[in-house]
Amino acid sequence: MFRVNENYLKLPGSYLFSTIAKKVGAYAAAHPEESVIRLGIGDVTLPLPPAVITALHRAVDEMGAAETFRGYAPDLGYEFLRKAIAEHDFAERGCEISPDEIFVSDGAKSDSANIQEIFAADSRIAVCDPVYPVYVDSNVMAGRTGSFDADTRTWSDVIYMPCTAENGFVPAFPESRPDLIYLCFPNNPTGEALTKAQLQDWVDYANREGCVIIFDAAYEAYISRADIPHSIYECKGAQTCAIELRSFSKNAGFTGLRLGYAVVPKALRDRNGVSLHALWARRHGTKYNGAPYIVQRAGEAVYTPEGQEQVREMVGFYMKNAAYIRTGLKEAGYEVYGGVDSPYVWLKTPGRMTSWEFFDYLLEKVHVVGTPGSGFGPSGEHYFRLTAFGTWENTVCAVDRIRAL
Amino acid sequence: MFRVNENYLKLPGSYLFSTIAKKVGAYAAAHPEESVIRLGIGDVTLPLPPAVITALHRAVDEMGAAETFRGYAPDLGYEFLRKAIAEHDFAERGCEISPDEIFVSDGAKSDSANIQEIFAADSRIAVCDPVYPVYVDSNVMAGRTGSFDADTRTWSDVIYMPCTAENGFVPAFPESRPDLIYLCFPNNPTGEALTKAQLQDWVDYANREGCVIIFDAAYEAYISRADIPHSIYECKGAQTCAIELRSFSKNAGFTGLRLGYAVVPKALRDRNGVSLHALWARRHGTKYNGAPYIVQRAGEAVYTPEGQEQVREMVGFYMKNAAYIRTGLKEAGYEVYGGVDSPYVWLKTPGRMTSWEFFDYLLEKVHVVGTPGSGFGPSGEHYFRLTAFGTWENTVCAVDRIRAL
Repeated sequence: MFRVNENYLKLPGSYLFSTIAKKVGAYAAAHPEESVIRLGIGDVTLPLPPAVITALHRAVDEMGAAETFRGYAPDLGYEFLRKAIAEHDFAERGCEISPDEIFVSDGAKSDSANIQEIFAADSRIAVCDPVYPVYVDSNVMAGRTGSFDADTRTWSDVIYMPCTAENGFVPAFPESRPDLIYLCFPNNPTGEALTKAQLQDWVDYANREGCVIIFDAAYEAYISRADIPHSIYECKGAQTCAIELRSFSKNAGFTGLRLGYAVVPKALRDRNGVSLHALWARRHGTKYNGAPYIVQRAGEAVYTPEGQEQVREMVGFYMKNAAYIRTGLKEAGYEVYGGVDSPYVWLKTPGRMTSWEFFDYLLEKVHVVGTPGSGFGPSGEHYFRLTAFGTWENTVCAVDRIRAL
Repeated sequence: MFRVNENYLKLPGSYLFSTIAKKVGAYAAAHPEESVIRLGIGDVTLPLPPAVITALHRAVDEMGAAETFRGYAPDLGYEFLRKAIAEHDFAERGCEISPDEIFVSDGAKSDSANIQEIFAADSRIAVCDPVYPVYVDSNVMAGRTGSFDADTRTWSDVIYMPCTAENGFVPAFPESRPDLIYLCFPNNPTGEALTKAQLQDWVDYANREGCVIIFDAAYEAYISRADIPHSIYECKGAQTCAIELRSFSKNAGFTGLRLGYAVVPKALRDRNGVSLHALWARRHGTKYNGAPYIVQRAGEAVYTPEGQEQVREMVGFYMKNAAYIRTGLKEAGYEVYGGVDSPYVWLKTPGRMTSWEFFDYLLEKVHVVGTPGSGFGPSGEHYFRLTAFGTWENTVCAVDRIRAL
């Protein structure tokens, strides 16, 4: 009889956000009179910017007329979008990335899950701890991670790089050499960023050791400090060791529209000269059929002057929330991190509470929902994540409730 | 140093449609005075139906207002769409498929490429020959296909099931037992269909032998005869052995909008009771973030009374083309197949020309582009595919030119 991919069976059953949803659902059912404020999930709340809405309507009209209808898109993305990306996200920052090194996709989640496919089955991966679960889970499914230890909640064949207050949330180079290094900065969940000098150290390490860095820059729009790089290609030598993943979700509110892209430089080759660019192009051509035309036009609109202005306003709105959370919790005596170059605020739980104890405490006492840090990895224990993606009113109300505790 | 997935390097370099594009480009450049008619690629030419355009505009407006904005979609698809699918595509045909057995995706190409992931790495696959290349290529990338023989253009570990005029384009059961069987009916590229009794034989075989059938029903909207099943779930016992893939591309013109779905029945389990439904749900949740809200609303509109009427008109338009091609070529003395329950017409090349010889002959003599059958597999040699997706004028002109040869 047919058999399944047994790697899937190794995945621990319960997913962080579904556990949270269940707990919140049970609490809300038992206390219908309480107003629960959700600052847990990283979904946005502001509507799409007007420039994007206008572009969508225009593109929809094109799809309704025979002369302007568009069928299958180019596998790698429309030239108009790839050119806008190359110019605004890279050339303007002094990075030499050409349009044909950009692969348009339906989002950074898919790209970050699929990218491992083009590497050898026995590649060793290194991840920050805490970490966005998709990097590890997609490698579990591919059979790269060994066995799961239910006590430590770690995989035997994954290299974990702790990021805690003790090391300023900057990972140290691992003791044994990985093949693939997943770095997400500004970071989810800690909200902290790497300076250009710190990222340059990682690029130098990867080139020296023959590793590939998968650089997830989904939160780059939230960077406020000058010495934080928006792209890994601002570092020298990144073209020979790094793939960068970008998203339209958090800057322009595309979580429900789905658009992202990967940069795979042509200079990125293995020891035999095999081009990762060619492999990723082959994967796109075989397993994907391009992002919708109308959504690619929406993405293009983000790079117009009006689009850029509107995106800056959205980011500013969320960062005002982040500042309110940071300041309010600091004043209340919490140790608080992140929230300056990212929409996430990361705090130490008070009185050595575990992350889940603090989750229950906040839910029961002040009806505020956040995300337990331990859900992102063992080094996230005793930490807690709040997001800046709520409405202003809810954010203020949640912080004021926590302060009153 | 890091290493790549070497299975990718086994893939033969040149892809069918890019070879065609190169040949046509070279011809057109050398003969700018000739009007070339393309009946090769399976892309549609009619614009999206008005009901779909209206639904898109409405959904875009919702995304522009805070009260109606939608962020992350449910991983498996919005309930409104899954309900419409369950009712119209299944309940109305007497198939018991519940909304939560339906997984909405960005199209049947992605699904047909990704579905192999949930099966064991050493699963044996069987495909019809000729065949849509994605089924085989996605398994090559996963390392399941052994070595490639450049002479026969076949893989050592793939079971090929020839479909030719000799067996009426109905595959015979393979001599050795496969784990996964890819069946696409109505078929691409032959354009021929299986009767309900013939498909029932396959369902019985799969249940008896412990195989899973991946049933690609992308062309079901083109079925005109009463005894051709639209869904494999019209056959008894299919719920324990079959996954069905569906597309909105060819019925409603969504090639540039991207929407499809997979049906994975809850009764489909391996010998240890592992549910394929649970594995596919896990894959969706980990590696995918849902189809865009606006596109799912567009899909819903296809099932409204106006949408259904407009889709019937589109299909009727293309089938008028198919009938003209069939009749015209028959009258000209060609052996012609397909084009009754599908938008593809499959013809025997005259005078034992190879598929590529006939391609060059048509291009040079009458400037008509089709697809060489051998590009779909060795049993496609001496066959040729024409599609019904052109405009009426181009279709008539192409057929009349071939008749005049």
